[in-house]
Amino acid sequence: MKTGARRLARNVVIAGAGASCFGVFPKKTSRDLFLEAFLDAIRSVDKGLQPADIEGLYLGNFASEVFEGQSHLAPLMADWAGLAPIPSVRIEDACASSGAAFRQGVMAIASGMCDVVVVAGVEKMTRMPTDGVTAALAMAADDVFEVQQAGLTFPGAFGIIASAYLHRYGASPEHLMRVAIKNHQNGALNPRAHFRATIRDTMKARAERMAQSGEPEPSWQDEMDFLRDDRVNPLVAWPLRLYDCSPISDGASCLVLAAEDVASDLTDHPVHVAGIGQASGGPLASWDSLTSSPAVREAARQAYTMAGVTAEDIDLAEVHDCFTIAEIVATEDLGFFAPGEGALAVAEGMTARDGARPVNTSGGLKAKGHPVGATGAAQIVELWEQIRGQAGPRQLPKQKPRYGLAQNLGGTGSTCVVTILKG
Amino acid sequence: MKTGARRLARNVVIAGAGASCFGVFPKKTSRDLFLEAFLDAIRSVDKGLQPADIEGLYLGNFASEVFEGQSHLAPLMADWAGLAPIPSVRIEDACASSGAAFRQGVMAIASGMCDVVVVAGVEKMTRMPTDGVTAALAMAADDVFEVQQAGLTFPGAFGIIASAYLHRYGASPEHLMRVAIKNHQNGALNPRAHFRATIRDTMKARAERMAQSGEPEPSWQDEMDFLRDDRVNPLVAWPLRLYDCSPISDGASCLVLAAEDVASDLTDHPVHVAGIGQASGGPLASWDSLTSSPAVREAARQAYTMAGVTAEDIDLAEVHDCFTIAEIVATEDLGFFAPGEGALAVAEGMTARDGARPVNTSGGLKAKGHPVGATGAAQIVELWEQIRGQAGPRQLPKQKPRYGLAQNLGGTGSTCVVTILKG
Repeated sequence: MKTGARRLARNVVIAGAGASCFGVFPKKTSRDLFLEAFLDAIRSVDKGLQPADIEGLYLGNFASEVFEGQSHLAPLMADWAGLAPIPSVRIEDACASSGAAFRQGVMAIASGMCDVVVVAGVEKMTRMPTDGVTAALAMAADDVFEVQQAGLTFPGAFGIIASAYLHRYGASPEHLMRVAIKNHQNGALNPRAHFRATIRDTMKARAERMAQSGEPEPSWQDEMDFLRDDRVNPLVAWPLRLYDCSPISDGASCLVLAAEDVASDLTDHPVHVAGIGQASGGPLASWDSLTSSPAVREAARQAYTMAGVTAEDIDLAEVHDCFTIAEIVATEDLGFFAPGEGALAVAEGMTARDGARPVNTSGGLKAKGHPVGATGAAQIVELWEQIRGQAGPRQLPKQKPRYGLAQNLGGTGSTCVVTILKG
Repeated sequence: MKTGARRLARNVVIAGAGASCFGVFPKKTSRDLFLEAFLDAIRSVDKGLQPADIEGLYLGNFASEVFEGQSHLAPLMADWAGLAPIPSVRIEDACASSGAAFRQGVMAIASGMCDVVVVAGVEKMTRMPTDGVTAALAMAADDVFEVQQAGLTFPGAFGIIASAYLHRYGASPEHLMRVAIKNHQNGALNPRAHFRATIRDTMKARAERMAQSGEPEPSWQDEMDFLRDDRVNPLVAWPLRLYDCSPISDGASCLVLAAEDVASDLTDHPVHVAGIGQASGGPLASWDSLTSSPAVREAARQAYTMAGVTAEDIDLAEVHDCFTIAEIVATEDLGFFAPGEGALAVAEGMTARDGARPVNTSGGLKAKGHPVGATGAAQIVELWEQIRGQAGPRQLPKQKPRYGLAQNLGGTGSTCVVTILKG
C-alpha cells in the first residue's frame, strides 16, 4: 500500500487566543494559570463564544505529576472551567506538548467530530527547587541512552550542540549572546513576558546597585561587555552561560479552534491553519550532524508541503529558543538561513523585530519564559496577535504579516512540531 | 452557533491487534513491553503491513515519569520500533489513557492526515513498592478535593461507591465476589492474563499447601467460602477485599487502525469502528449519585448515537473492572441492566461467557491485569479477537459476535471512553 494522505478533510481556523502572564507565581496553581489563559482566549473571540459550544479540550502539559503531584490534568481543567462533560485529553510530548496538542485539536475538527475545540498548555514549575526542575526536565531525554549512560541534562545537551556549532562554523559565544539581547529587547515589549527588561536596562540597574553599595564601577560599555562578565553571566555548560538559557516559569496559553465552515459565527478575521507537521527522532547521538535536527527538518518539510509555501514566504517565526543556540540551529533547519549562517543572521540584525526575517517577536522562550507545556500554544498566540495586527508595541513594522511559523521542540530533538498560519 | 457534528468524515477500521503478556516482569522495561505488543499487532495483519506505511503513533501511558523516571515516551517507543520520524504522541487520561489514545487515532485517520496509524498503551508499574504505586495512582484523582482534603486513595474511592451501592440496593459483598469468580474463570482461558487460575483452582492449591504443612483442614466448600475467609481475602477498604481489586501489572497493547477506503490492502476481515464517545466529569463528590457515573453515561450516549445502536444490540463488552463494584456499576450505566440490577445479573450468570450478555471475556482488569496505560487498548484487542472468531478457548459460544463495546475509565470517573466495534 502507499500511505501519505496529509490533507485535512476540513479547514481549520484560530478564532481566539490568550495566555496568562509567564513568571514565578508562588500563589498560583495549574488551575489558576489555566483559567487565566482560558478566559483571556474566550474574551478574544470577536463575536463571543458560549462555553457550551466548545466540544473538546486538548491540554499540553509536560509533568504536572512531578511538579504538582497531580496527574490526569485535562478533565480537572475542563471541570474547573465549567466545560465538563466535554472530552478532555492531556497531550505530552515534553516541551512540544502544546504544539502537539494543537495538531490534535486541528485533526479533531478536520475529522468531523467537532466544530469548536480549545487547545491549551500549562505548566507550574516553580514549586520545587531548581535542581529538582532540571532533573525533572531530564526525563524528557532518553533515560537509558542519554541520562544514565551519558549523564546529560538539557543544558549539557545544548552545550554539546553549541560547542559543535562553534567548532564547525567558526562562530563565537558572542553570536549566542546576540540572540539573548534581541529576545530580551522583544520581551521588554511583551506585557505577558517573564522578563520585561532589556539586557541594557538590567546592566544599568546592576551598575547603579553596585555604585550604591560602594563597589568599584564596572567597565561595561554595552550589553556585550555585560554578558562577557563571569560575575553576571556565569558558565552553565560551556559555551552556554546563564543568559543563554530560558528561565523556569509558570504559565498557561490557550487557543480557540473552529472549523472554517462555522467560523463566521465567531469572527470575521480568522487566522487560518495553513500547514502543520510533526516528526519524531532518536537521541542526540543518532543525529546525522550535531548542528541540525532531523526531526525539525522533517516537521518543517511536512508543514511547508501542506501549506504550499517555502521558507521564503514566512513573514515571522516563533522558534524554540530553550537555549540561544537552539534558535540559531532552528532558523537554519527551517530553511531561513543556510547552514552556518544563522549565527551571522542574528549578528546582522536580520532576525530582529525590524529585520528582514523577525524571529521570536514575543521575546521567545528566552525572555517571555518557558513554562514547558504552555510554550507551543503560546508561540501560536503570538503569531495570531501579529497576524491580526494586535501585538501592540511588539507589532511588526510591516503591518499584519501574512504567514507566520511556529517551531516547537521536545526533548533532545525527539519531537518537533511546525505550524504555519496564514492571515 | 450550534456545534455538535460528531460524524467521522471518513470511516475507520481495525486491521490488527496484539498485546504483550500482562504480569510482573522484573527484567522488562516499557520499551520491551511495547515492542512485544507492537510486533504481535503487526503480525496479526492478515495481508501484512510494512512499518513504513505507518503514519502516526498514539501511545496511552499514565505515569512512566513516576514509575520509570522516563517521560516523553512516545518518540522513544517510535524510535525503538524503527518508526521514526513519524509523529508520535503520548496521551494521558489516567487509566483511560489508551482508550483516549484510540479515539485520537480514529480522528487522525478521519481528518485525512493519515491512512494508517498505530495506537498503543503501555505501563511498567512493578518497579516500585506497592504503596508507592497506590500513591502514584492517587495522582489520577483530584489532589485538592479528593486526595489532600478527603484522604482518598482509589481503593477508598471505590469502597465508598460499593458501600453506597450495597446500602441503596440491598446488595451484599457476595455479589461483588461473583464478579471476581467470573473474571478469574475467563482469565484462566486467556494466555496473556496476569492471573491464569480460577479462584477454585487457587482454593484447591491453597488447601493442599495447608495440608502439607500440617495446618487444620479448611472448611471451604466452594469459592464463596474461600472468599469469605479473612485470612485469604482480607479487607482492603470496606466492603472491598483483596479479590475485589485488580492487580498491579506490567504490560502493553497495540492496535493497527486504517482508513476503510485503504483497508482492503491490509485485510479482508476488518473490524469497524462504529461509535466512540468520551466524556469528562468532576470529582466523586460532584456525582449526582454515588452509584452512577455521569461521565460513563455521557460517553455511552455519544457512542450509541454515533453507532446508531442501543445497549440491546451489544453482543459482548469489556468494562473497566478496576474493582468488582466498578463492573457492576458500569453494566448499569451502559444500559445493560437497570440501576440496582447489575449485582443480580452477575449472580444469575447473565454476564458469564455463556450468559446472555458476556462481560469481560478477557478476564477483565481483575484477572487479565491492569497495566493502567495499556488497559483501554487491551479491551479493544479482546473485542477484535472475539469479533473475528479468534479468541481460542475464550471464544464466545455464539460464534463471531457482531457488536462489541469497550468502556475505559480514568480517575474517579473524571474520564470515560466508550468504543463500539462492529464485525
